[in-house]
Amino acid sequence: MKNGIGEIQTQFQVIGNGEPFRFAAGGEIAAPTISYETYGSLNAEKSNAILLFHALSGSQHAAGYNPGDGDKPSPCWTEECHTGWWDAFIGPGRALDTDRFFVICANYLGGCYGSTGPASPDPATGKPYGPAFPHVGIRDVVRSQAMLLDALGIGRLHAVIGPSTGGLACLNFATTFPERVRFVVPVATGIRTTVLNRIILLEQILAIENDPHFRGGDYYDGPAPQLGLTLARMISHKCFVHLDAIERRARRDVVQPEDHFTWYSVADQVESYMLHQGKKFVSRFDANTYLRICEMWSRFDPVREGDAEDLTDLFSRSAEHGHRYLVFSIDEDYCFYPEEQAALVRALKRAGVSAMHITVHSDKGHDSFLLEPELYTPHIDHLLKSGL
Amino acid sequence: MKNGIGEIQTQFQVIGNGEPFRFAAGGEIAAPTISYETYGSLNAEKSNAILLFHALSGSQHAAGYNPGDGDKPSPCWTEECHTGWWDAFIGPGRALDTDRFFVICANYLGGCYGSTGPASPDPATGKPYGPAFPHVGIRDVVRSQAMLLDALGIGRLHAVIGPSTGGLACLNFATTFPERVRFVVPVATGIRTTVLNRIILLEQILAIENDPHFRGGDYYDGPAPQLGLTLARMISHKCFVHLDAIERRARRDVVQPEDHFTWYSVADQVESYMLHQGKKFVSRFDANTYLRICEMWSRFDPVREGDAEDLTDLFSRSAEHGHRYLVFSIDEDYCFYPEEQAALVRALKRAGVSAMHITVHSDKGHDSFLLEPELYTPHIDHLLKSGL
Repeated sequence: MKNGIGEIQTQFQVIGNGEPFRFAAGGEIAAPTISYETYGSLNAEKSNAILLFHALSGSQHAAGYNPGDGDKPSPCWTEECHTGWWDAFIGPGRALDTDRFFVICANYLGGCYGSTGPASPDPATGKPYGPAFPHVGIRDVVRSQAMLLDALGIGRLHAVIGPSTGGLACLNFATTFPERVRFVVPVATGIRTTVLNRIILLEQILAIENDPHFRGGDYYDGPAPQLGLTLARMISHKCFVHLDAIERRARRDVVQPEDHFTWYSVADQVESYMLHQGKKFVSRFDANTYLRICEMWSRFDPVREGDAEDLTDLFSRSAEHGHRYLVFSIDEDYCFYPEEQAALVRALKRAGVSAMHITVHSDKGHDSFLLEPELYTPHIDHLLKSGL
Repeated sequence: MKNGIGEIQTQFQVIGNGEPFRFAAGGEIAAPTISYETYGSLNAEKSNAILLFHALSGSQHAAGYNPGDGDKPSPCWTEECHTGWWDAFIGPGRALDTDRFFVICANYLGGCYGSTGPASPDPATGKPYGPAFPHVGIRDVVRSQAMLLDALGIGRLHAVIGPSTGGLACLNFATTFPERVRFVVPVATGIRTTVLNRIILLEQILAIENDPHFRGGDYYDGPAPQLGLTLARMISHKCFVHLDAIERRARRDVVQPEDHFTWYSVADQVESYMLHQGKKFVSRFDANTYLRICEMWSRFDPVREGDAEDLTDLFSRSAEHGHRYLVFSIDEDYCFYPEEQAALVRALKRAGVSAMHITVHSDKGHDSFLLEPELYTPHIDHLLKSGL
């Protein structure tokens, strides 16, 4: 394998040509910025672009090394952010081969990594939007990134790819802008939010709301709701990582003297590991952004958000435009269960869409999509190059 | 089926003959009270007694109707507590047949239903113990109930029974006081706390600790940490009730105007149902008691708490005393998985103990043990009467 991307910087694009961005659930933002990174070169025909959607707590920094520059791309840019979250998948000779393709990854609108979000200053007041920032839906994220493509002069994408919650955006993009894409690669994602998803997301929302520092989201002039966000991250982490992997990782952990609360003291490695996962997250994420992404996921409805009658109607757009889907499942995924991708593939087939469904075996759980490029690369590489 | 128990009152027993009760993890309480109820009549030989351990949020009130009397058995005694939690299992002709047996159920030491707990006044100060109440282990609960049996003049029990976390106490009783029991019936319980148990218990503990009203457990002169306890109950409720059952029950729910937090508003029935489950719990439970039971469960280790070398050594005591075990599993139990009872039964067989293992099919999840007496009654009835 050749070398990867090397050092890279985040770029920024104001979208909307001076028009305010109107959110599907109401509210608007004047001239929002989208932060993004690109890898590889756009060809003269502008036909080799791939749009990659990040997962819940990810960022535009998918590949290479980005140490940030002062407050850019954001005050949340800690050392944990410096290496791209899909670095092993992007670069010369990798699954998204930058010798051939021009890869774009953008931070969600409402995010905390340089795209306009709740922590950004409202031009009307000079203070952060805070709770006044609108509720964000998957279709808002998708439309904002389509506007980024407009600004970059890119019409039709070679492919759109999204793992985890990024897969929800990937599906919405393909069905909202079917004329703008050829290949669609949803990885370990779903077509509805399950009861368990919604319950676990509500727990996380309540964990943040219960933090006395949250103050309805208007906390930027004081301490952040760190304990609430810590608990929220702990709640989600157990779904992302296979429980056996948590146990293996925890064996390397040591219970620290600071692992105590006011009454309770942590006394075993699993507790300590989970607490550290939560605590290290709070320095790199904004609670208001986290709430918006939780809500976006909880409310996701591909049919309603795609303005369709049902799933078959929705995906008939993909059939009409000759999309080819490559759907990945992870056999022991406790976040987006394999049954969900199977339901997606059934819906695609009903609508007459060309779809390949690959289930990888992993003992790492949902996190496999970040950790095991070898399980995904051959199929992604083969699909993407088949269209050249 | 004949009539049930009818109206009943809680009784109270000071244990320890004037000696303070010393907890295994340190600390002591002078002359603690154990609240309990009994059903049926103790025979002249005192040989027909059955001790039943309640689950995490249960009480001594297992059968019949107990409307309480003023502040008795406790200020937490809301209408939800008035009907016994195992009413369909206890009474004339029922699984625990009160025509034959004398059934005893006691509130855990550290509880909030009349047994001495964190909300009880410390005689030394006249104020509630609060955070000064010791950490409670399963073996403390078991030993305190053995002392209650002493006070009642009962030597050897006909049987000890415990569902869910009550099963942990049931196993500890049988192996700590093997000479005091014949039949042992653990229902939907385990022999170790799993990684998932510990993670979910830590989440609940942190939810309460994060509530600004918790104040280290010293909250009795102000508002209680209700939002934290609400979240804790929501987190646990999803494990007790099958997700399909949650979805079915939620369909009857209506999103209420008060279902909103400072920023987030509940918008679907599942969220609303879960929130109501959490909210209705806080009026009937004390957060400090909840924390102690979470810790008790999280730290449960039958080998260590039974002062044994390993599980085979532990259960060899049951073999020596000719115990007969009846172990129940619920096939879709997401709280104590069937694998856990299978491991228990393997350990019993290794030690040479007579053990019958019955798995019931239920679409209700862990809660089946409360809701479906018909699945359990024939086997329990047959076992208990085989020894008469």
